[in-house]
Amino acid sequence: MSIVPELMAANERYAAQFTNGDLPMPPRHKLVVLTCMDARIDPLRALGLEEGDAHVLRNSGGRPTIDVIRSIAVSQEMLGTREIVVIHHTECGSIRITNDSIRQRLTDSLGSAASDAAVAIDFLPFTDLEQSVRDDIAVLNASPLLRPETEINGFIFDVKTGRLQQVDLT
Amino acid sequence: MSIVPELMAANERYAAQFTNGDLPMPPRHKLVVLTCMDARIDPLRALGLEEGDAHVLRNSGGRPTIDVIRSIAVSQEMLGTREIVVIHHTECGSIRITNDSIRQRLTDSLGSAASDAAVAIDFLPFTDLEQSVRDDIAVLNASPLLRPETEINGFIFDVKTGRLQQVDLT
Repeated sequence: MSIVPELMAANERYAAQFTNGDLPMPPRHKLVVLTCMDARIDPLRALGLEEGDAHVLRNSGGRPTIDVIRSIAVSQEMLGTREIVVIHHTECGSIRITNDSIRQRLTDSLGSAASDAAVAIDFLPFTDLEQSVRDDIAVLNASPLLRPETEINGFIFDVKTGRLQQVDLT
Repeated sequence: MSIVPELMAANERYAAQFTNGDLPMPPRHKLVVLTCMDARIDPLRALGLEEGDAHVLRNSGGRPTIDVIRSIAVSQEMLGTREIVVIHHTECGSIRITNDSIRQRLTDSLGSAASDAAVAIDFLPFTDLEQSVRDDIAVLNASPLLRPETEINGFIFDVKTGRLQQVDLT
């Protein structure tokens, strides 16, 4: 049974109390948050942010794919953001998979068409949480599509405590 | 001046009141939300969702790129999600750009290396908001990496009212 009726009822209540109709389009803090899709993370609340404050990018792992670079380029060029925070987290699914294991599982579940499609995809697993943050910031810093003066910091979110730990980038 | 000290102070307050340390990793509603990075959208609050309920994917436009397909495949295969909602929104930046215009702006701002990189990227602009939702759901439905029984619905979020309107997919 679809959850859509429940979502629509909740949105009625949200809209009835909505007071953000005049927010400007450019993020107030000139900030982009890049983090994982993980259900246990509410990046706005965890960072004390509200509607209007920041662009939020989320994918499996919080990794700087070409889609993320595309989005940040638009964010910086069209809407003036200048700072990025990269947030990975404890107990991330990206530590529990390898490219081989996820491809095999998709093939077993979905058949040969899925197998062919999955072989073409890097699922971006990682083994060291802190190093993955450093690696991802290095990728962002190396992109010619990001402004060279962009301030980028990295964090690990602990899903057991809700606490952010800043990653030493040196 | 970086906003990081402000974010860290806010996170201290968040962690001090944190009660979600025992949330299971699989999303409670078996749901993936795909939406735009736009700062005016808080997808969890707008849908009445909390930590633990849903995977959230966000990029420029809320478009189903290969990165999004990658993420949904992991979400479905590893963590059991079975439903997707695609949410585009009014006043989206993706309506205000073309590939030519954003590439030119990036070239003007960042030079020839940015120009070369930008030419290789489709920035995924669109002109018709409802049709973009239908197009994106068609892309998801056509992917061999998504389970064929996946329930997918589409919506437009009105940034002036906070209200979701379901898109007729027929």
